Amino acid sequence: MLTKKRNLSSDRCFAPEPVQRQIARQFFDSISTLPLVCPHGHVEPALLANPAARFGSPTELLILPDHYIFRMLYSRGIPLEALGIPTKDGTPIETDHRQIWQIFADHFYLFRGTPSGLWLKDELINVFGVDEPLNSRNAGNIYDYLEKQLALPEFSPRALFKRFNIEVLCTTDAASDNLEYHQSLHQEDFTQIRPTFRPDAVVNLDVIGWRENLAQLERAVGREISTYAAFIQALEERRAFFKKMGATATDHSAATPYTARLSDPEAEAIFARALNNKLNPSDVEQFTGHMFMEMARMSVEDGLVMQMHCGIMRNHNPAIFERFGSDKGADIPLQIEWTQNLRPLLNAYGNNKDFHLILFGLDESSYSRELAPLAGHYPAVLLGPPWWFHDSVSGMERYFNQVMETAGLYNTAGFNDDTRAFVSIPARHAVWRRVACNWLAGLVVRGLIEEEEGYDMAAAVAYDLAKDAYKLQRRD
Amino acid sequence: MLTKKRNLSSDRCFAPEPVQRQIARQFFDSISTLPLVCPHGHVEPALLANPAARFGSPTELLILPDHYIFRMLYSRGIPLEALGIPTKDGTPIETDHRQIWQIFADHFYLFRGTPSGLWLKDELINVFGVDEPLNSRNAGNIYDYLEKQLALPEFSPRALFKRFNIEVLCTTDAASDNLEYHQSLHQEDFTQIRPTFRPDAVVNLDVIGWRENLAQLERAVGREISTYAAFIQALEERRAFFKKMGATATDHSAATPYTARLSDPEAEAIFARALNNKLNPSDVEQFTGHMFMEMARMSVEDGLVMQMHCGIMRNHNPAIFERFGSDKGADIPLQIEWTQNLRPLLNAYGNNKDFHLILFGLDESSYSRELAPLAGHYPAVLLGPPWWFHDSVSGMERYFNQVMETAGLYNTAGFNDDTRAFVSIPARHAVWRRVACNWLAGLVVRGLIEEEEGYDMAAAVAYDLAKDAYKLQRRD
Amino acid sequence: MLTKKRNLSSDRCFAPEPVQRQIARQFFDSISTLPLVCPHGHVEPALLANPAARFGSPTELLILPDHYIFRMLYSRGIPLEALGIPTKDGTPIETDHRQIWQIFADHFYLFRGTPSGLWLKDELINVFGVDEPLNSRNAGNIYDYLEKQLALPEFSPRALFKRFNIEVLCTTDAASDNLEYHQSLHQEDFTQIRPTFRPDAVVNLDVIGWRENLAQLERAVGREISTYAAFIQALEERRAFFKKMGATATDHSAATPYTARLSDPEAEAIFARALNNKLNPSDVEQFTGHMFMEMARMSVEDGLVMQMHCGIMRNHNPAIFERFGSDKGADIPLQIEWTQNLRPLLNAYGNNKDFHLILFGLDESSYSRELAPLAGHYPAVLLGPPWWFHDSVSGMERYFNQVMETAGLYNTAGFNDDTRAFVSIPARHAVWRRVACNWLAGLVVRGLIEEEEGYDMAAAVAYDLAKDAYKLQRRD
Repeated sequence: MLTKKRNLSSDRCFAPEPVQRQIARQFFDSISTLPLVCPHGHVEPALLANPAARFGSPTELLILPDHYIFRMLYSRGIPLEALGIPTKDGTPIETDHRQIWQIFADHFYLFRGTPSGLWLKDELINVFGVDEPLNSRNAGNIYDYLEKQLALPEFSPRALFKRFNIEVLCTTDAASDNLEYHQSLHQEDFTQIRPTFRPDAVVNLDVIGWRENLAQLERAVGREISTYAAFIQALEERRAFFKKMGATATDHSAATPYTARLSDPEAEAIFARALNNKLNPSDVEQFTGHMFMEMARMSVEDGLVMQMHCGIMRNHNPAIFERFGSDKGADIPLQIEWTQNLRPLLNAYGNNKDFHLILFGLDESSYSRELAPLAGHYPAVLLGPPWWFHDSVSGMERYFNQVMETAGLYNTAGFNDDTRAFVSIPARHAVWRRVACNWLAGLVVRGLIEEEEGYDMAAAVAYDLAKDAYKLQRRD
Repeated sequence: MLTKKRNLSSDRCFAPEPVQRQIARQFFDSISTLPLVCPHGHVEPALLANPAARFGSPTELLILPDHYIFRMLYSRGIPLEALGIPTKDGTPIETDHRQIWQIFADHFYLFRGTPSGLWLKDELINVFGVDEPLNSRNAGNIYDYLEKQLALPEFSPRALFKRFNIEVLCTTDAASDNLEYHQSLHQEDFTQIRPTFRPDAVVNLDVIGWRENLAQLERAVGREISTYAAFIQALEERRAFFKKMGATATDHSAATPYTARLSDPEAEAIFARALNNKLNPSDVEQFTGHMFMEMARMSVEDGLVMQMHCGIMRNHNPAIFERFGSDKGADIPLQIEWTQNLRPLLNAYGNNKDFHLILFGLDESSYSRELAPLAGHYPAVLLGPPWWFHDSVSGMERYFNQVMETAGLYNTAGFNDDTRAFVSIPARHAVWRRVACNWLAGLVVRGLIEEEEGYDMAAAVAYDLAKDAYKLQRRD
Repeated sequence: MLTKKRNLSSDRCFAPEPVQRQIARQFFDSISTLPLVCPHGHVEPALLANPAARFGSPTELLILPDHYIFRMLYSRGIPLEALGIPTKDGTPIETDHRQIWQIFADHFYLFRGTPSGLWLKDELINVFGVDEPLNSRNAGNIYDYLEKQLALPEFSPRALFKRFNIEVLCTTDAASDNLEYHQSLHQEDFTQIRPTFRPDAVVNLDVIGWRENLAQLERAVGREISTYAAFIQALEERRAFFKKMGATATDHSAATPYTARLSDPEAEAIFARALNNKLNPSDVEQFTGHMFMEMARMSVEDGLVMQMHCGIMRNHNPAIFERFGSDKGADIPLQIEWTQNLRPLLNAYGNNKDFHLILFGLDESSYSRELAPLAGHYPAVLLGPPWWFHDSVSGMERYFNQVMETAGLYNTAGFNDDTRAFVSIPARHAVWRRVACNWLAGLVVRGLIEEEEGYDMAAAVAYDLAKDAYKLQRRD
């Protein structure tokens, strides 16, 4: 159908100097067929649990679930209603997916030089064979072409999972989740999909709907949770269930990485105030800080890897939140402090080398100042890859540049794609692998490592480190 | 007169790798003849209002008005008195401009690798034809040569304005300014010079001389300003007058971007305390934060673009301030927080795509952490170019590297030279255009954008973005 | 003994682009034979005072004194006990140095891409002629080979001092130190070793063992120190003694660079509370802030250069501190503020160009935001080289990139190696000189400086700036 060829350089993300580029290419060739390890992300397990599941329209595939995409369009003045983003308040929205696609194509230039632009190009070419640049004129044709493809069995989530060569994919699931899709996958021995225990909705007392979230947790454990002690017991039970269903990790998010243990009576008192809807101003931070300690304790006991994602103000824009809800591209990072905030947790658990604490932040000034030195000292600490906004070519370059000399490569946790956008997974891993290989080639041409060391390090960064960090070898 | 040739590479600011350099050169060639758009700066309108105006001596042209220059000399131990900087306290100063020039030449090596050094070299070669490196031996000859040139009509401000191919130049003017020079320019239909409304002197209650500044505002509106309501009305009137005189923008500076609306009675009470010289400790910050809200409200109403320059401690060195006054190179940046501070303003006005809020900061750690995410979400927010210390080759490279992937190029406001040093304008724009083209060429050789996209983006970054951001198409 | 050749590129640390690399090489060749100036470090003077001193075993030379090395091994789960690090609490440790070396070799891959890895490689090849990569298999052989070499006179500290072409080496010494080794070196006219006055142990009131440290100071001055006035007098006396023994500098460390003068009665009161072990919560910070002012005052009077090292939390990990003590790789940097904190000190003394205040920090976000602007204005302020974690190839590149355009090269203090690991000194200076020459070559190929300027700047950055900053020309 499509005639004009589009260029997706086989040397993309590599520095232009020919010697470095040649070495980067060799490193990349040596690891490009390794399976993808996806230890943290937000793909819906339902997509994979049902062999008959399909992605829907091109708009449902690429625009509606991806706040990276629609927040950029919104920032240039396009209403989210016009993009078909569902509203909570009944405001009517555009329902013609082909028309939404046209708006997207009309503004495709906005993604020039952005990671979304690079991923989309890769997906269109390598997943769907669309090698013509998307623009206003060809938008309709490309939409129709994609729509046909998406209906084919070879473009089902399951088929793409195989085609993408994904070895393992971890989802992110509420503490109260019954993991029905994981159970179903389990039953058919599709063990490459694993859950991750994320209890934020009940642990962070200021989450909107906390009481209802707790009610869900009560239903999950089959009893009332009227005390802090019962709450802890419920969480321990759920962790055990998740572990049985294949989980190797937990995930926790908070505005700051403040940690401090409360006494049991203090924790009980705050929990009681939460139940009675009478929280004191400092209760939320105190309780979250305490629960980080408790989660670390449980991880030491049950062996689940602990992830902390800190430094984001959720729902910065109330107008967007009220109409459209959370995760609509209106979260803005915050400056955060790690050295003092994490100290109580690390003093209690950080010297345990079997405890893995993987840290993620959005304040890059802490890479060289706090995060790399912490990872370069504490046996438990590993640094996660560049997160969210920094999951980009330059973001990764800054990460390698600012983290590795101090932390050492082997105190990092490889890559994770952290995505809801399933078809972007290979594109995202490709960027990581390419930027990593280019970084390693840069070390070689500067005489800082030997070329043979580079091959070892490339395999580690592309595959081994993630598996080791998330304890994905074993299947309990 | 001068014999030894000095090298000003036609490839300056470009990366050395030949393929990237070639593409950067092509991009630069494609935009190098575009007119200069100067939407923010500190050139005196009087210079251009009078066709007979001249720049004075070489020292008056290049040293006395430029705190970038004399602060560097001061930092190495040369007294400002020896450089002829006027004193407020009657301390005698050097008045022999040729002798000051000799000191400057003796220490010209201090500017190696600095933006001032690069601009000066460009000005001397390209504006004045001095292609011999300035040093102690040739200082006098070069001084004499420049002095002669500066007396010629072709080196008058007006002549250079034309030669520089400046399409529009916005000045920065106090709220009480009668804009006499702009009126005069207006009358002769020289409409390329526009005022900018900068009310800091009356809005920031801790400005030295606030009461006198307010008195000037009273004279400008022709009545007493004894209440907050009258103050607001006066500002609205002045904005209308500025707009009539061609202004499209306002400018606001404060130590932090704290914003929060006060109730009218609260605002009235603070204003009354200011009039009575009885300010409470938190009044200044509260009032400035409130006035940011008010200025945004007025911008939404009258369409003037709003600029915020935040994060500098003015007059860090009292000894310098007391003897020489403000703007003497003794301002030092501060760490600042944007995400929480700007939230009230953005929640109130940030979803309005016809409101343009252009942000400038000196804390580069906020580029990727706060500023790019804000610009990449809110329709109203645009990021200004690297400011002040960061208006430099590496400063721009860091800006492109840290801002663009998240904000997207089209959420930025192009370039402005922000200068008092009129003859440095072409040199400053050249650095921006060159670094931008080199950045774009880097994206091409890394396979991140297509070459044809690069040409579009180069024109945007060199010309269109600034015109669009500052609404400079229209002439009300 | 060793057969396989290991590659230590003569172009290491240089960018790969051939033109830049060629210029970098020329700059490096022009300065590579300049003597090493070592104005700040932690080498034990005893090593050099006794001509018969030897380094001991390879483990004693390279592992036991170097927390950069063993903290990386610890971070990957190797107990410090297994590495032979002495314990305070009697816990048994590995005493077989050959076995410790084996563990080190088994994990040598952890240092890939780290500065320690680069220095070790350089030391093994260029100091000891070990040109085979260290690994598990050859560990024993290499150990035996090194052990034999270390016993030879040509590998004595004195012999290496000459071979390394060190012009001057400053040690770091407590205020109460009797400088016996310096006196002995003085007597034999070995004047290249100079002490540095570091009074932290008595000035920072929260140092563990403060009272005993003060007692040592009392013994040093031969009288009781029961008042603040006596304390100040004792410090002045000790500074005079250090200066007589060749010191040109002092060194001061604190968590933050907070400075503020107390009244004498306030200072007396805090000092009295310290003596009575009844400190108030804010006393420590107040007193340290005051003593920075006092140290600056004394420096203005006696001409000693003042160094400030700020922004590190010492002993972040109490488990390590309790068993092994300080300086065990468990210090983690902190975010710090310079602009407001240093203002009182700079307002009092910063305009004095004969006062040299050299600043060191670990929060790189302050390079371009605060440190470079301060150095680029105040005559007294110079910036020290990248410190500790940032004494690395990329750390130096970030420093040149972020500091130089604003501060100017001539407001920086050249390099210091800051090391306890004597044999790493040439390797560390080589990295600095190489990265600096590569930075300068980058300026040349980008047309930002002339090639002849680059030669001057290379000599400055490699040699002159450090001598000038530390006033090492003169010998009082």
